[in-house]
Amino acid sequence: MLITLLTDFGTADYFVGAMKGVILTINRDARLVDITHDIPPQDIEAGAFNLAAVYADFPAKTIHVAVVDPGVGSHRRPIVVDAGSQFFVGPDNGLFSYIYERERDVRVFHLTNALHFRQYVSATFHGRDVFAPIAAALSMNVSLNQLGGVEITDYVRLPHLTPRFSEGKIIEAAIIHIDRFGNCITNLTPEHLTEAMIAAGASLTINGRKITSFRRYFAEDNGEASGDLFAIWGSAGYLEIAAYRASADQLLGARRGQTVQVISDE
Amino acid sequence: MLITLLTDFGTADYFVGAMKGVILTINRDARLVDITHDIPPQDIEAGAFNLAAVYADFPAKTIHVAVVDPGVGSHRRPIVVDAGSQFFVGPDNGLFSYIYERERDVRVFHLTNALHFRQYVSATFHGRDVFAPIAAALSMNVSLNQLGGVEITDYVRLPHLTPRFSEGKIIEAAIIHIDRFGNCITNLTPEHLTEAMIAAGASLTINGRKITSFRRYFAEDNGEASGDLFAIWGSAGYLEIAAYRASADQLLGARRGQTVQVISDE
Amino acid sequence: MLITLLTDFGTADYFVGAMKGVILTINRDARLVDITHDIPPQDIEAGAFNLAAVYADFPAKTIHVAVVDPGVGSHRRPIVVDAGSQFFVGPDNGLFSYIYERERDVRVFHLTNALHFRQYVSATFHGRDVFAPIAAALSMNVSLNQLGGVEITDYVRLPHLTPRFSEGKIIEAAIIHIDRFGNCITNLTPEHLTEAMIAAGASLTINGRKITSFRRYFAEDNGEASGDLFAIWGSAGYLEIAAYRASADQLLGARRGQTVQVISDE
Repeated sequence: MLITLLTDFGTADYFVGAMKGVILTINRDARLVDITHDIPPQDIEAGAFNLAAVYADFPAKTIHVAVVDPGVGSHRRPIVVDAGSQFFVGPDNGLFSYIYERERDVRVFHLTNALHFRQYVSATFHGRDVFAPIAAALSMNVSLNQLGGVEITDYVRLPHLTPRFSEGKIIEAAIIHIDRFGNCITNLTPEHLTEAMIAAGASLTINGRKITSFRRYFAEDNGEASGDLFAIWGSAGYLEIAAYRASADQLLGARRGQTVQVISDE
Repeated sequence: MLITLLTDFGTADYFVGAMKGVILTINRDARLVDITHDIPPQDIEAGAFNLAAVYADFPAKTIHVAVVDPGVGSHRRPIVVDAGSQFFVGPDNGLFSYIYERERDVRVFHLTNALHFRQYVSATFHGRDVFAPIAAALSMNVSLNQLGGVEITDYVRLPHLTPRFSEGKIIEAAIIHIDRFGNCITNLTPEHLTEAMIAAGASLTINGRKITSFRRYFAEDNGEASGDLFAIWGSAGYLEIAAYRASADQLLGARRGQTVQVISDE
Repeated sequence: MLITLLTDFGTADYFVGAMKGVILTINRDARLVDITHDIPPQDIEAGAFNLAAVYADFPAKTIHVAVVDPGVGSHRRPIVVDAGSQFFVGPDNGLFSYIYERERDVRVFHLTNALHFRQYVSATFHGRDVFAPIAAALSMNVSLNQLGGVEITDYVRLPHLTPRFSEGKIIEAAIIHIDRFGNCITNLTPEHLTEAMIAAGASLTINGRKITSFRRYFAEDNGEASGDLFAIWGSAGYLEIAAYRASADQLLGARRGQTVQVISDE
């Protein structure tokens, strides 16, 4: 059974190793895959984006454990999300927002049975003491019922996941992620901004700067000058704003969560 | 058979990959788990602490390979520690000090049979050439006898592992680790500093600064100001000195290895 | 089946996780080993060196996926190299140069059948969309023929892989890699610079600085002063220029690719 791990724990300490030890003690045959442990500390949005960009590439029945958990030790709920033929285990703080958005038949369960937690639950390390053992139990086919799963519908969702429409026409998108190269990833998918709309001259405006150039790949050489801004469909499935040999976010003064005006004649 | 790896090799070079290749060439079915490879270069204390914090979460028979080895190529001994139903493989330089401290029935073996080393042993990379093949051999049930294991009792131990007592009363602890958030981890466990002692008003003094506040979790909101210092039981099982939204080590001017005065009326 | 991964993707994003998900969706039993993902961005030479230093430690039939790919989305060819009883999958940009150099019976195939690529091939992420699925297919015993493999001989090679000789005598080496400690790794092997030549007083000159000291290991104490330069056989099998408690590259003002004069009386 595949179990993936995504955290903000970094890799310099024993934290991730401890989660793996706990899982393998419960299920010796679990197969572990790291997504990343370098989510910026407590950055739920970045965790949510990276999980969204990757989960669909994993096979059915994969169990994804995601721990970016500023509220550890407080009353935020530990949950399991059953969606897209996969399980997602982590805190109820918005980390699974994209899953809720994209998948049909999403069911979310608040886990109330501490019996399957680690014997001694620390106040600071629920990755090891709560979420790892829950994932291991799921991989051993322990049922949500046995885990004390109580279905909930008031789970936490992040804002800005989808563009705003007005009279059926898209008018406003948002930047949902800025990657380490400074590319600004918007919440626009090919369903929102179609090939026809692009062909008809759609444009984006960010902080007063208009972007009209759409490109197929980064290495494309159209005789640009360094710093020319363009839009490109990124590998996570969203439209990204990038710059030729430069950081788009710096050129634009862009911040995550900010709006992007969309103008389309179509 | 589970084999964990903990080193100071970093992850930017081929070093860790080479160790894994050597192990998998000897035992194709070995299952490898990284604890961390970002121990600060040659920092034996940090390696020892991280190993101590994690080994007990792994199942019996796990083989832990730990390589933080400033003396590589010199005459320090390669050893295997048999303790706590697990094996520990690495250099005899104090890296396994906490294991010696915590486990009963510890046996330590100096390995003298180069036959199970990599064919060509480099002077600089015993992680690949000595420790990886030894771990792989152990995972194939090669006996300590076949590895030329000679039991020793004069193995190297680090100082500061346990607090000092005077007339049965605890009087002095030490900082054994400072994590990347600046939390100062002491060598105090709940056996040294009991709930009763805390309830009766025990306090700690570090560099002239007295700490009397004990907390249950980091996110706890007691109306503190940023920089307020407090003690908390950390996930490694030790009492940690932390600061509300600040680095305790900077506020205290604390260094690893330094003393902490403990005052208790109990 | 073992599949190793070496990229310049870093570990902060979902990129490596996505490659693993794609592989495990195709071959649930694939065993994945990370070599490194911290090759400096687009640094083909560094990728080639690290791969060269590690592949021979893996068992026969291992499939190595290497992705350092500044030309992604352009017309550089995706290739599979069949050499040394192993497979190498990646872009045709020089990344496998050392394999070509060292192994006999090297065969290189340009892959032309997109049927085994990921269903939607992005313009920016061939690691996930082309190379991961090809590796997974190879691990499922899909033949090079089925992958549309067309043998080529004009594959890209990096310069500086071997020293220059004049009248049978070695006269010029090059620095092929500088590691994170500042050690300068040359392209000299014990076949080029023999024990006899060293015993007879061979020397190296880099940027006007002559190096005559050959050492067995880093920790060796010969009463050196900090900054003393010396040569040592490194763990990758090459002669390295190192400095006692200092960075050789800074002391020498050395750059990768630069020449090293070799003087030998033998």
